[in-house]
Amino acid sequence: MSGNTFGTLFAVTNFGESHGPAIGCVIDGCPPGMELSEADIQVELDRRRPGTSRHVTQRAEPDRVEILSGVYEGKTTGTPIALLIRNTDQRSKDYSAIAQSFRPGHADYTYWHKFGIRDPRGGGRSSARLTAPTVAAGAVARKWLRERYGVQFRGCMTQVGEIAIPFESWDHVPNNPFFAPIADVSQLEAYMDQLRKAGDSCGARVRVTASGMPVGLGEPLFDKLDADIAFAMMGLNAVKGVEIGAGFASVAQRGSTHGDSLSPQGFLSNNAGGVLGGISTGQDLDVSIAIKPTSSIITPRESIDTAGQSVEVVTKGRHDPCVGIRATPIVEALLALVVMEHALRQRAQCGDVRQAVGPIPASA
Amino acid sequence: MSGNTFGTLFAVTNFGESHGPAIGCVIDGCPPGMELSEADIQVELDRRRPGTSRHVTQRAEPDRVEILSGVYEGKTTGTPIALLIRNTDQRSKDYSAIAQSFRPGHADYTYWHKFGIRDPRGGGRSSARLTAPTVAAGAVARKWLRERYGVQFRGCMTQVGEIAIPFESWDHVPNNPFFAPIADVSQLEAYMDQLRKAGDSCGARVRVTASGMPVGLGEPLFDKLDADIAFAMMGLNAVKGVEIGAGFASVAQRGSTHGDSLSPQGFLSNNAGGVLGGISTGQDLDVSIAIKPTSSIITPRESIDTAGQSVEVVTKGRHDPCVGIRATPIVEALLALVVMEHALRQRAQCGDVRQAVGPIPASA
Amino acid sequence: MSGNTFGTLFAVTNFGESHGPAIGCVIDGCPPGMELSEADIQVELDRRRPGTSRHVTQRAEPDRVEILSGVYEGKTTGTPIALLIRNTDQRSKDYSAIAQSFRPGHADYTYWHKFGIRDPRGGGRSSARLTAPTVAAGAVARKWLRERYGVQFRGCMTQVGEIAIPFESWDHVPNNPFFAPIADVSQLEAYMDQLRKAGDSCGARVRVTASGMPVGLGEPLFDKLDADIAFAMMGLNAVKGVEIGAGFASVAQRGSTHGDSLSPQGFLSNNAGGVLGGISTGQDLDVSIAIKPTSSIITPRESIDTAGQSVEVVTKGRHDPCVGIRATPIVEALLALVVMEHALRQRAQCGDVRQAVGPIPASA
Amino acid sequence: MSGNTFGTLFAVTNFGESHGPAIGCVIDGCPPGMELSEADIQVELDRRRPGTSRHVTQRAEPDRVEILSGVYEGKTTGTPIALLIRNTDQRSKDYSAIAQSFRPGHADYTYWHKFGIRDPRGGGRSSARLTAPTVAAGAVARKWLRERYGVQFRGCMTQVGEIAIPFESWDHVPNNPFFAPIADVSQLEAYMDQLRKAGDSCGARVRVTASGMPVGLGEPLFDKLDADIAFAMMGLNAVKGVEIGAGFASVAQRGSTHGDSLSPQGFLSNNAGGVLGGISTGQDLDVSIAIKPTSSIITPRESIDTAGQSVEVVTKGRHDPCVGIRATPIVEALLALVVMEHALRQRAQCGDVRQAVGPIPASA
Repeated sequence: MSGNTFGTLFAVTNFGESHGPAIGCVIDGCPPGMELSEADIQVELDRRRPGTSRHVTQRAEPDRVEILSGVYEGKTTGTPIALLIRNTDQRSKDYSAIAQSFRPGHADYTYWHKFGIRDPRGGGRSSARLTAPTVAAGAVARKWLRERYGVQFRGCMTQVGEIAIPFESWDHVPNNPFFAPIADVSQLEAYMDQLRKAGDSCGARVRVTASGMPVGLGEPLFDKLDADIAFAMMGLNAVKGVEIGAGFASVAQRGSTHGDSLSPQGFLSNNAGGVLGGISTGQDLDVSIAIKPTSSIITPRESIDTAGQSVEVVTKGRHDPCVGIRATPIVEALLALVVMEHALRQRAQCGDVRQAVGPIPASA
Repeated sequence: MSGNTFGTLFAVTNFGESHGPAIGCVIDGCPPGMELSEADIQVELDRRRPGTSRHVTQRAEPDRVEILSGVYEGKTTGTPIALLIRNTDQRSKDYSAIAQSFRPGHADYTYWHKFGIRDPRGGGRSSARLTAPTVAAGAVARKWLRERYGVQFRGCMTQVGEIAIPFESWDHVPNNPFFAPIADVSQLEAYMDQLRKAGDSCGARVRVTASGMPVGLGEPLFDKLDADIAFAMMGLNAVKGVEIGAGFASVAQRGSTHGDSLSPQGFLSNNAGGVLGGISTGQDLDVSIAIKPTSSIITPRESIDTAGQSVEVVTKGRHDPCVGIRATPIVEALLALVVMEHALRQRAQCGDVRQAVGPIPASA
Repeated sequence: MSGNTFGTLFAVTNFGESHGPAIGCVIDGCPPGMELSEADIQVELDRRRPGTSRHVTQRAEPDRVEILSGVYEGKTTGTPIALLIRNTDQRSKDYSAIAQSFRPGHADYTYWHKFGIRDPRGGGRSSARLTAPTVAAGAVARKWLRERYGVQFRGCMTQVGEIAIPFESWDHVPNNPFFAPIADVSQLEAYMDQLRKAGDSCGARVRVTASGMPVGLGEPLFDKLDADIAFAMMGLNAVKGVEIGAGFASVAQRGSTHGDSLSPQGFLSNNAGGVLGGISTGQDLDVSIAIKPTSSIITPRESIDTAGQSVEVVTKGRHDPCVGIRATPIVEALLALVVMEHALRQRAQCGDVRQAVGPIPASA
Repeated sequence: MSGNTFGTLFAVTNFGESHGPAIGCVIDGCPPGMELSEADIQVELDRRRPGTSRHVTQRAEPDRVEILSGVYEGKTTGTPIALLIRNTDQRSKDYSAIAQSFRPGHADYTYWHKFGIRDPRGGGRSSARLTAPTVAAGAVARKWLRERYGVQFRGCMTQVGEIAIPFESWDHVPNNPFFAPIADVSQLEAYMDQLRKAGDSCGARVRVTASGMPVGLGEPLFDKLDADIAFAMMGLNAVKGVEIGAGFASVAQRGSTHGDSLSPQGFLSNNAGGVLGGISTGQDLDVSIAIKPTSSIITPRESIDTAGQSVEVVTKGRHDPCVGIRATPIVEALLALVVMEHALRQRAQCGDVRQAVGPIPASA
């Protein structure tokens, strides 16, 4: 119950610290007989990898994954799949100063109070680097869900700082470093350049969807599909808000417009975001998250040290000015892990997982 | 894994259907030796109870709780506490028509697809009536957390439909049927009267806080305090969005303003909402949720039946025009359950739970 | 994690004390669509019920079960099935004396040290009465496994005190109060009569089997089928030993005789007891348990009170002179719960559960 | 739920195959602040290591453990401790023949039926090699329990084949390759030499104890201390029986002798084996297990292949003629993991773990 395992039937146990020897995870519960290679996983790790543009951290993290177990002659065997990523860019520097003071907005303060000890090197366990094993595990879930049911996970950035990003097409997303669904990202680049010069950071809004969803996934009363999505998303570093479907806009909606009508051809709208009563409708899952501005900035901040004395904190190092920029592959992976878990739960209790018959889901 | 248990160390297993013989829950893991009577629980059930104003459903649900186990001579024994609430207002009517068609915005469609069978009487298992056992269990957690650590849970409505409700004082909350923190609720009453006449419904925004929080609660990497809060809140009927601290507003914030600075006297702001790195800071927890408009409205809607044929659906019956109105005691209970769970987890791994020493949390 | 839930996918949460208002359980995870009535459950409760012969306790416990939820129009809905049994024979007597001293061989001492409080009435939570809800939940599992896969659970007594009971036929088991597989139980009756007169008690050995088993149930590495069987059996009141297949006799066997050979017609022996590598072979599960002599005897015993002072303890009341006599229906239920759990786990990960094809299991 | 995690609060997730790249585990829930180095773990791995006498397998498995995470500057941080053991003695041979037939007494048959695929190299996942990570994790638990509460775990062999081994002294155990508590093991050596020449194998009986036990560990109703011990022991490769305290001998005991009396100086006997009502008494835990004879023998056996055709199987390779010989360090580790788990559970619900006050436990 120390919180490092995600899921129960498709259980991903994450380990590692930012500057320790290695990070990784163990996936328990993967169905047997699926073809799986390191390349299947590496492709998703590479999408998340830093250093790919000037707008993200310039740390060099090759993040090469090694499959240690659970695969025999190229196929999953049903036994645990252990994935290992060696840390290579562990700068040997003196962390003693940083170790004694708390950076505003960071987990320094809370780890220290919780455990009475913390690994300060590169953020230790609280580093966003620990999302890499999640992306790796998500790649396994995505492959199974795609091959088995045709589910597809896609995400994009919809706002950065004050700039809302209109949705043009999914086709643009892989063509720019922001995962933005627009053709021309020059405005975003200018915005980020200015921010970086100012030594400051900004937040972002990211959307993630799943299409080709089966119907019937999600467990009432508590382990609802949307509850688990919220759990997954809010548990991601820096996330401060989660919406499903119409989200906070639903507060000002009327019941006569919010409730998605059905016709023999399917749902006529998707205010629900693909979930009713905590169970998937077969429509696209549609989720948005709010990511706070990076706390590691070079602007001096007022804080205290472990003795409770006032200190001024300046965070040097190679940090993302907007952690939301690299969030898209991660939230896709998280959504895949949630759907995978519920697909297996549905098989357990109800014996099968299936697409909605008759009602064609409206496209989101 | 069928999702009807909330929590692991303080595990609440919920059972029942809206119109079945009874609803209730079993609490496993309550610390022994706490004084507990049915009156301690009833007071919270009464806050949630319908029929207390013209703005909520007029169903008569006395919701008398009976403690079946786990208490001996007025004290908890450490064994499971089973709580039973008999259903008394089960109108015996013919549900055969309703059972064959799907109400837009309801769980009818998804339960039917998931299980191949559903109890249509009063919404069956998906009814908001099933929040009563959650409120009851929450009362037990609240009592322990209050007596042991002085934690206090409070909630209020902050928006109904298009009307934002300013925060005046917690003192007003118990004095009006909206749980609104304002002295004069005449505008809200007029709004609701108009809506009811129109046969429509609206959404709401509700805020819930915990003060007197210990520091160090929450389990990285996945079972973070904020992740579990999001899970709890999004799992509540009709909730479509969850925010912690600055929430979605943090997207447009700068890092230099978002990160809460610390002084020897404590935090200087609370954009974090009381959680950093998934662990409580000792500041007030500050959570907001979006509740969608009630789906049960008398306005006719387009839908289909189980055979996939077009039908027009009109939902009669005694429904809340804004389910958010009665949500406040429920979200307080949910937040208490999350904090309780993490308090026990903290005791397990780190041996104790304690208040932050030195830094006095800024009031939220 | 307070231990009152058995299973994860077919999760049975047990509550109640021997002399509290009620005992019962909540079953979460039952597949939907199975016909289920109170009569299906009552038949198993009646097999376990005390007072049916002079060799068991004369307490009157009608143990009428009420289904509170999870069944609609005679079929399971996939939602939690809550089962309630009201306690009716709660003698109102003064437990204050008994509450202050520890009966040798009982849980008095350990409950008091663990929780700092205990319900002494009739053994409270540690009473064997709490096996009734387990039998009830087992009846649900047995019905599903029988209808779905043809699995059959049978148990019998194979030793009482020093008297070994030879296996003659399953047909005799329901015809005597010992669940003994022999036609003539006069020797057993004489033995028990003598023991009862002596004010003493004895142990028993009970065997339980499952036939018609699917192949492939059980999860390596830890949650093996035999590990979970051992957990279930050792967790039953008074059990001090568990064997699978050849059990302790396998210590003196040679590898050349122990390992069950296979022919195209199936296994040629069943030393394994139906489990290899923690996974079912499709052969009969074959389990034996050792049950200690009843601790509640009228012979005076040396003990201490809660203040640590010497006391003499005599346990009056209506106790079974051999708790093993009524154990058979309970261990059948426990075995069914274990098989049910693993059947659902197998569906989750591997998609189906099936009978062994080709190799016909040798009869046990 | 695929069964590769042991424990919940002190959760050990095991991964790897006998001849894959590596084996290991992730420990989640270790309390922070304990000094821990690889040497602390290696010492226990070395006790289990093969190749140390002619009576065990001659495989060379150096089993060097590497700590990948969870330790900072020599102390545990409260985050997951990942332990890695690279496989070095992976003989590259052709397993295609063996892969198609089922060795009697092995998991070949059941893995193949369960998963539809199996890794045949060295037994794959079902190899006893996978007990190495368990021993490693146990070393961490043992260290914490020893330093915190003074608990000590000790095991010894009490029977090999037909030869019962009398208990002389714990001091002899480390001085012979059998973990036998006797000074002169020449009889055992002769027995094993003869068996090896005959190309056969035998079983063993092993005893494991814990002294210095706190009182109050174990969770009624189901997750009892003895139930979890039985689960752990029966889940170990080749185990077919488990006893606690008097075990199967209690069947023929009388209640007047079995129940352990108490005096102000403590318990007067230990038939209970240190557990009453599923909760530790503070006396020594006393557990015995039956280990079946090694199934891998060079004697030809009758079996079938994956097509169901008759084959003759001869298992070559370097196998232990009695797997029980190396079992002692493993069962000590398993018992430590169970006690650790329940110590943390006790802290969670009851706030502390403590030694019995007053009654001094009788030595076992």
